[in-house]
Amino acid sequence: MDLDHSAICKDIAGLWRRNKGKIIVVHGASKYRNHLAEKLKIRVKKITSASGVESYLSDHEFMDVFLMAYAGLVNKKITAELISQGVDAVGLSGIDGKIWLAERKKFIYARVGKKLKLIKNDLSGKVIRVNTGLLKTLLKEGYLPVLCSPAVSGKGEILNVDNDAAVAEMIEPLGVKTLISLFSAPGFLQDPDDQASVIRKMKAADLEDFLPSARGTMKKKIIFAQKAFEKGLQKAYLGDGRIYRPITSLLDGSSGTYISL
Amino acid sequence: MDLDHSAICKDIAGLWRRNKGKIIVVHGASKYRNHLAEKLKIRVKKITSASGVESYLSDHEFMDVFLMAYAGLVNKKITAELISQGVDAVGLSGIDGKIWLAERKKFIYARVGKKLKLIKNDLSGKVIRVNTGLLKTLLKEGYLPVLCSPAVSGKGEILNVDNDAAVAEMIEPLGVKTLISLFSAPGFLQDPDDQASVIRKMKAADLEDFLPSARGTMKKKIIFAQKAFEKGLQKAYLGDGRIYRPITSLLDGSSGTYISL
Repeated sequence: MDLDHSAICKDIAGLWRRNKGKIIVVHGASKYRNHLAEKLKIRVKKITSASGVESYLSDHEFMDVFLMAYAGLVNKKITAELISQGVDAVGLSGIDGKIWLAERKKFIYARVGKKLKLIKNDLSGKVIRVNTGLLKTLLKEGYLPVLCSPAVSGKGEILNVDNDAAVAEMIEPLGVKTLISLFSAPGFLQDPDDQASVIRKMKAADLEDFLPSARGTMKKKIIFAQKAFEKGLQKAYLGDGRIYRPITSLLDGSSGTYISL
Repeated sequence: MDLDHSAICKDIAGLWRRNKGKIIVVHGASKYRNHLAEKLKIRVKKITSASGVESYLSDHEFMDVFLMAYAGLVNKKITAELISQGVDAVGLSGIDGKIWLAERKKFIYARVGKKLKLIKNDLSGKVIRVNTGLLKTLLKEGYLPVLCSPAVSGKGEILNVDNDAAVAEMIEPLGVKTLISLFSAPGFLQDPDDQASVIRKMKAADLEDFLPSARGTMKKKIIFAQKAFEKGLQKAYLGDGRIYRPITSLLDGSSGTYISL
């Protein structure tokens, strides 16, 4: 289970040196989580929400794998990689210090064939409060917080939360003005079937127009980008995390989508 | 892979409420690590050091499992359990903020049969500096740091370090006066083969006398307890973590071994 985040970390290190105390990194680890589940022979149960979004059932077994992949393997490898590049990185999950305090979804409905089924053993939730105090303390001391899911409820339940949703919750309380989002696509696409149809520049107000044609993860990213702009975000750079020096390339406009208010 | 630290966490929560800003928790997870390695069919290679101490070869594969069990599963479950009991816990590994900055052992010698073999792919190390700044900041803000191995080198190498050795390194820079150590034995034993021969009270100066008869983990615990007392520790409570309310029981003298300066 090898992990090479070194290109991205090189870019983050540069960004951190120029903006110490002003950056927070949020990462995912779904690829490693699914790979680990497979190796452990844990059957990951796909569910489709009432609104048609595909996800996984977050039962106890799944959340154990989640913790190991996100908070264990990937969070610490990214943190160590950043340390190797001179960054004072501190890896944390949303659980720690209740950075992401979440509310558990009491039940969810999922499509099973044509029927909607009520699911009760799902440990997913929604971030309702961000512990800005802890994050600000770390930033003030010069650290770079490296943050990942899961979150935690007030009762100590470990909850799967969506990263994009959690990031949107952090915009207002932390006064975030710029968002850089890396994923496995060249940017926002005019035509979801044409990887060359990247929209290079757009206004936040026009995000709405892309909702009907967007699919899956991208639909979700648009919804939470809209929310982030409503909460005070001024600029968003969205693009491909798989290319060489992805952040540098996004910021100088040579790749991805730039969205301004 | 179920984890029930709730009895210990209940005790820690009580201790924290009475001594907020003055407690750090350090935990292991070797049982879960070995269990996970087995499930992942990763062959854990036992090695015996030149001095006869048994341990595991910490190669890359082993350290991935280490991260998942320690920093992922167990650290976050303990943190969430403490949060459920009202504690402002923050789970961290020695990597984060270089809390445990370590030096990699350039090579180790291990016994293979009657021969000593040179091993170069071992990722183990020794804590050489503790980031007391980060720990003190967290304590000052009222958090309870929940800390575990691995540590990190200045070059960002993720290194397996011994918990007892790392704790001994923290005594002086943090001014630790009291140590509570829980393990799977009723305390320090007069006769290692007689579980009923617990030494109830002793002086730090007399630890030396127990070295010849002590074995394995207990030998290590004595060596690092000695070191901790040299570095300023005044009291140590050592005892069984498997019993009901283990810390309360240790502190009121109804179980374990109490060592004073």
